[in-house]
Amino acid sequence: MTDTPPAHRHHRPSGSAFRRAADYIAAALIYLRENVLLREPLRPGHLKPRLLGHWGSCPGITMVYEALNVLVTERGPEVLLVTGTGHGAAANHACLWLEGTHQEYDPALTRDESGLTELARRFCAPDGFPSHLSPALPGTLHEGGELGYALATAFGAALDAPARLVACIVGDGEAETGPTAAAWHSAKFLDPVTCGAVLPVLHLNGHKISSPTVFAAMSEEELTALFRGYGWDPRIVDVRDRPAGSDPVADAVRAAHDTIRAIQDTARGDGGGRQRRRQQPERPRWPMIVLRSLKGQGAPARAGGRPLEGTFHAHQIPLEDAREDPGRLAELEGWLRSYRPWELFDADGRPAAEVLARCPSGPRRLGAQPAGNGGLLRRPLALPPLHPHAVRLPDGPGSATASPNRALAGWLTEVMRRSEERRDFRIVSPDELASNRLDGVLAATGRAFTGPPGEYAEDVSPDGRVMEILSEHTCQGWLQGYLLTGRHGLFPTYEAFAAIVDSMLNQYAKWQKMSREVPWRAPVSSLTYLLTSEGWRQEHNGYSHQGPGFIDNLLTKNSAVTGVYLPPDANTLLVVMERLLAETGRVNAVVAGKQPAAQWLDLDEARRHCTAGASVWEWAGTPGGGEPELVLACAGGIPTVETLAAAGMLRHDLPRARIRVVNIVDLCALAPPRRHPHGMSEERFTALFGEDLPVVLDFHGYPAAVHELLHGRPRPGRFHVRGYVEEGTTTTPYDLLIRNGTSRHDLAVAALRHLPGRPSAGPGGPADPAVLADLADLADLADLAGRYAGRRDEIRAGIRRTGTDPPEITDWTWQP
Amino acid sequence: MTDTPPAHRHHRPSGSAFRRAADYIAAALIYLRENVLLREPLRPGHLKPRLLGHWGSCPGITMVYEALNVLVTERGPEVLLVTGTGHGAAANHACLWLEGTHQEYDPALTRDESGLTELARRFCAPDGFPSHLSPALPGTLHEGGELGYALATAFGAALDAPARLVACIVGDGEAETGPTAAAWHSAKFLDPVTCGAVLPVLHLNGHKISSPTVFAAMSEEELTALFRGYGWDPRIVDVRDRPAGSDPVADAVRAAHDTIRAIQDTARGDGGGRQRRRQQPERPRWPMIVLRSLKGQGAPARAGGRPLEGTFHAHQIPLEDAREDPGRLAELEGWLRSYRPWELFDADGRPAAEVLARCPSGPRRLGAQPAGNGGLLRRPLALPPLHPHAVRLPDGPGSATASPNRALAGWLTEVMRRSEERRDFRIVSPDELASNRLDGVLAATGRAFTGPPGEYAEDVSPDGRVMEILSEHTCQGWLQGYLLTGRHGLFPTYEAFAAIVDSMLNQYAKWQKMSREVPWRAPVSSLTYLLTSEGWRQEHNGYSHQGPGFIDNLLTKNSAVTGVYLPPDANTLLVVMERLLAETGRVNAVVAGKQPAAQWLDLDEARRHCTAGASVWEWAGTPGGGEPELVLACAGGIPTVETLAAAGMLRHDLPRARIRVVNIVDLCALAPPRRHPHGMSEERFTALFGEDLPVVLDFHGYPAAVHELLHGRPRPGRFHVRGYVEEGTTTTPYDLLIRNGTSRHDLAVAALRHLPGRPSAGPGGPADPAVLADLADLADLADLAGRYAGRRDEIRAGIRRTGTDPPEITDWTWQP
Repeated sequence: MTDTPPAHRHHRPSGSAFRRAADYIAAALIYLRENVLLREPLRPGHLKPRLLGHWGSCPGITMVYEALNVLVTERGPEVLLVTGTGHGAAANHACLWLEGTHQEYDPALTRDESGLTELARRFCAPDGFPSHLSPALPGTLHEGGELGYALATAFGAALDAPARLVACIVGDGEAETGPTAAAWHSAKFLDPVTCGAVLPVLHLNGHKISSPTVFAAMSEEELTALFRGYGWDPRIVDVRDRPAGSDPVADAVRAAHDTIRAIQDTARGDGGGRQRRRQQPERPRWPMIVLRSLKGQGAPARAGGRPLEGTFHAHQIPLEDAREDPGRLAELEGWLRSYRPWELFDADGRPAAEVLARCPSGPRRLGAQPAGNGGLLRRPLALPPLHPHAVRLPDGPGSATASPNRALAGWLTEVMRRSEERRDFRIVSPDELASNRLDGVLAATGRAFTGPPGEYAEDVSPDGRVMEILSEHTCQGWLQGYLLTGRHGLFPTYEAFAAIVDSMLNQYAKWQKMSREVPWRAPVSSLTYLLTSEGWRQEHNGYSHQGPGFIDNLLTKNSAVTGVYLPPDANTLLVVMERLLAETGRVNAVVAGKQPAAQWLDLDEARRHCTAGASVWEWAGTPGGGEPELVLACAGGIPTVETLAAAGMLRHDLPRARIRVVNIVDLCALAPPRRHPHGMSEERFTALFGEDLPVVLDFHGYPAAVHELLHGRPRPGRFHVRGYVEEGTTTTPYDLLIRNGTSRHDLAVAALRHLPGRPSAGPGGPADPAVLADLADLADLADLAGRYAGRRDEIRAGIRRTGTDPPEITDWTWQP
Repeated sequence: MTDTPPAHRHHRPSGSAFRRAADYIAAALIYLRENVLLREPLRPGHLKPRLLGHWGSCPGITMVYEALNVLVTERGPEVLLVTGTGHGAAANHACLWLEGTHQEYDPALTRDESGLTELARRFCAPDGFPSHLSPALPGTLHEGGELGYALATAFGAALDAPARLVACIVGDGEAETGPTAAAWHSAKFLDPVTCGAVLPVLHLNGHKISSPTVFAAMSEEELTALFRGYGWDPRIVDVRDRPAGSDPVADAVRAAHDTIRAIQDTARGDGGGRQRRRQQPERPRWPMIVLRSLKGQGAPARAGGRPLEGTFHAHQIPLEDAREDPGRLAELEGWLRSYRPWELFDADGRPAAEVLARCPSGPRRLGAQPAGNGGLLRRPLALPPLHPHAVRLPDGPGSATASPNRALAGWLTEVMRRSEERRDFRIVSPDELASNRLDGVLAATGRAFTGPPGEYAEDVSPDGRVMEILSEHTCQGWLQGYLLTGRHGLFPTYEAFAAIVDSMLNQYAKWQKMSREVPWRAPVSSLTYLLTSEGWRQEHNGYSHQGPGFIDNLLTKNSAVTGVYLPPDANTLLVVMERLLAETGRVNAVVAGKQPAAQWLDLDEARRHCTAGASVWEWAGTPGGGEPELVLACAGGIPTVETLAAAGMLRHDLPRARIRVVNIVDLCALAPPRRHPHGMSEERFTALFGEDLPVVLDFHGYPAAVHELLHGRPRPGRFHVRGYVEEGTTTTPYDLLIRNGTSRHDLAVAALRHLPGRPSAGPGGPADPAVLADLADLADLADLAGRYAGRRDEIRAGIRRTGTDPPEITDWTWQP
């Protein structure tokens, strides 16, 4: 094929033509910017100035990729690959280039020498492909940069896709993580009738960055026992001795596929299995593969006087100083030539027929799967009307009581019903559905679980579309995989424990942000958290359950992909959820309560309020209009109650003080528009908050989140933000508010402190304190503040005595 | 014992006298505020107005507690209990009251009726005991509110305490979490010679809040296989049929203790095992217990027409409406009387002799363990001097280059050596020690691992005090348990992945805050994260590895327990670490780099700088003093380099502009003193930043963190904060800075934008822009800014072309 003979031939050949080609290309991507097919002797100038990437797991990835190609070629199933070891991206690039999907998404990446050169130049280059998997790679839905989430993501992709086989490579580094260790149980939630299958390949190459792996130190007996215990049927494939001509990985994949088909055939029977609903068949024992290889298999056995192949020294860039050290350059050339590239590519650099012999073509290629670009498959949910579930307010604001989550559950039940046929909506939850008053949806679907669920269980069925496992990590992984393959879902979770998936949120938000920059990626449904069982109502659970910081973390992410909503009542919650279940491309947090609470807006008002993001609640402020002297603002259900109560106290005790009440439902509306796309215009901001009015803003979470959003607004120092300040324990709701300075009494005192001496005239600016009012002078205000503080302290003393909040707090509702 | 006959006797007795007493008390704590020994018929007024707590796991906790008591009574080992199911706190309270430790810590909790009444009134009451375990409970070092961390914490407590047996109750809810699933591997890191043992009791009661548990749905064969696969020797104990007179839990604990002693005897041999160091014996197979019980075992079998005992309905408060419903009240009374309290307490309410027969007394009681109040055991580390490890600066700032982490590693090696005898210092790391250039410490100790570590490994030994597992959760749990039992440690981790333990940090910081409020708690060593492999230097790893938000999360916690440090060079890092390894009671994050970088301060200067928290670097600003017109401030290693470079550019191009450079090492010094104890005084703040000077502050992380700290400082709007704004990918270091607007060129442009037109006179206030300078008018400044921006864009174009940063960036060092 080429006239360049092997200059250095110290190394054995490695595997099939496809695998040799893929491994060769993976190495070439890491090292070379020119002479990528080694048509001439390797010179330092052919090497990239910055050698970046990770070789260690590349050979394992190509082994699995090839075996899956063989399966697809021979049998034609729909196979999606989730590569947990994103650090082996060079191998995925190699396979995508070989199969030709790369060039279909990017015409510059032609399947010839120029395309390969371009790919090599872009790999790990500024403005090129990042070093890990990323949304820029066809067929890819997982980056694998932060380890732990591949397996749960793979399960999410397999849910409700009965024809799909999701292969998932888990490295033995990743296998040590908690999220992966939990996710092995996911198979118990996978219905063989309505869902596809997941084929995990645990890739044991024995070494992480510099330590041996835990799994490599386990005996075969222990490995087998562990995974049988998890419920799998593991098969250990050891390729370290690489017998010539055998293809043990492809054999194992074929055998696994046989077992998967048998499980599915048995479960599905003739009628597609629908008649089996709510019965409990035997739980299937799905196959999995444990692939033992050498780390960096195929690299030189030794380099620089120390072992290389099969050791952690092969993790990143073997022979890193090849550019500077001629001996090392020769070793590198010898290694690259050991793949015999002259046999693998034709004169134009196109892959030889032998290379592509077992590589599928057309839409079955792993890189061509529509599920790898799930927005293409996504169909909008058929959302039911809200009004049957809306709370009626016969006598205006405050005239009804409802649990926002229960109202939402009614509507979600209809969402479940309307998605019954397409099966494209799921709820994941860490066993908190009932606790969060969302269990109404179980009227329309079950809790997913296969096999006998134990002695006593309610509402469990294999094809249920509620998924409850006490692992926020698994819930999030499932939902990511589900959304990324074109479906819809919701993640209700205890607010305080959402932080368990802070880092998953980080990575997913980054994925979404990168996806926006890939022109061919179709947007997927937004990922929405319903943060509930809020810290303010943790009578049973106390301080550990008081943590509103998930919002803060979300807000650090790129504003193009973030949203935070604090609906103050049931109808606003419904409107927000209707919007978010139709939305794409974002990560949203919605904070809502489960406890029955007073309701403020009817459905039409709720729609207007949510469209605006924040509005003046005229009925709650001083009647009769006029320029206000102070704004009481609130964001969140409980802050709304307290703010309205404080406004009521002030209206009663200081009737001619001009106070405006503003409620904020879309928190990011507070931000300047240049900092967040939801940010309201300067004009609108001024219309709500004035230009220099004092604002007492009671916020559901940590005040810092609001401070940061207000950054860049004019005179942010006039905003006095109250919120949770980490003063918590198990106590009554009102006592918790008092501890954090957010009780109605504290808010009223704060308002009095910031209320200017009543101005005699003028458009609402701060008055000269020397100009006293017709009604109350500053001494009056101080006296009133003293009364409020005194009453607050009395209430607190009573709470300590009785253990309960007094009726003046618990029975309070807003009176028009 | 009492003259009150059993009014309702519908229920079987349950277990031994101790267990009946403990279960009875646990229930009484949940329900009763009077008549706590049921000396009279139960009336609604005896019940608490708010019924709070969780019954479901209480009976399992008392079973285990009793069995441990039996072991201690019979054999006398040092046993510490970690209760993962903190939701069963009522059971722990009951056992602590019975054994008399409660009254030793709080004289009001006497072991009689009045003490029990007081305990019941405080349980879940405002200002009383919170609903979960908490630092207020003697012998306790884990709250168990957020599930997942008990097992790793137990291992941390057992490290380097060869006489200690740490029992750990893991619920089957908790067992579903990822952190727990990973922590089972911890046994592979536990040296039987130098460490104690952990005895896990997996408590399967089958139900979570409302779903069946995954583990309850597993067959005995699967359970056995799973834990054998993990490396344990599991024994399943089923107490659901409760054979009268048998004591299967105590039997299982005895048997486990036999095995543990055999393992330890074999490993330790005669010489205490020290001679065995760095050999690889067979890995021990430690015993564990799987305890199958009914959920809420002992509660009525049915209530309100539905099953109760053994179902999820027993999770929280069975018979919740007993106060309102007379029938339910009778059921409650019948249940409580089924424990036959009249047999269990004497006329004064003291526990009967039979109850205490198998309950230890004195210092071996579970609640009396000093390790449960580890500050008592803590001895300050013998810290070596810093100067042998300090970087010399022969020609002043910028005259040497060093990797801060490597310098630190030198000092930590000495810390390892000096703690060799006491074995009270460990480093935990998710396999990143070498990557973070801290592997120098392996000269003084090994990486902990027992049994054969696989085919190729370096520096592995069973008694090594570096612990590397690719699970941040496990690392954190180990370290928490280690510190809470009076030892010292450090957690170096990739900055971006520290967020994996955001929620563990939340809970641990809450624990520390609560501990400060418990008078008898002695402070434990601070938990310090070394956040390294920072996002700015992720050439190999890209966007997923760029996430400085851990600091933001830490700063949401109570300021009494938080610290954030950004040492700009090696010597400041040494000084900060010396301080933090001597400190107690806090959670600290230290950000430091591993790459070789220019060094700025000698050791004495570093000490002064760290003491101050932030200082003016006179040598970097405009020479000759005078009131500055603008401050260039920086926090973090790379921001320091860029700020000094920007200052250099401006000194060169605008020599008479008066620019001051301020470096911030203790980030919280920026906060007003009322908001953080590290906050510098108003006077000092003004001395650094002036009263109204413009400040361009380049920060290592998200700008929001600095905005929030500056909240409450005068005129915070004059601070123009640059930082990471989520614009990332795999690229060169300088390109990443440019993308985020933090390159030296961007900083210089920002300075020019905010530099007032040069004032003709006056103390540094912003000048009238109309008053132009003798040197540069506004047009000159704009022109210069244009030049800088143009050069930045040229550099960026060059980076895209060549893939590397130009020498003017990479070779730059500060020149005096």
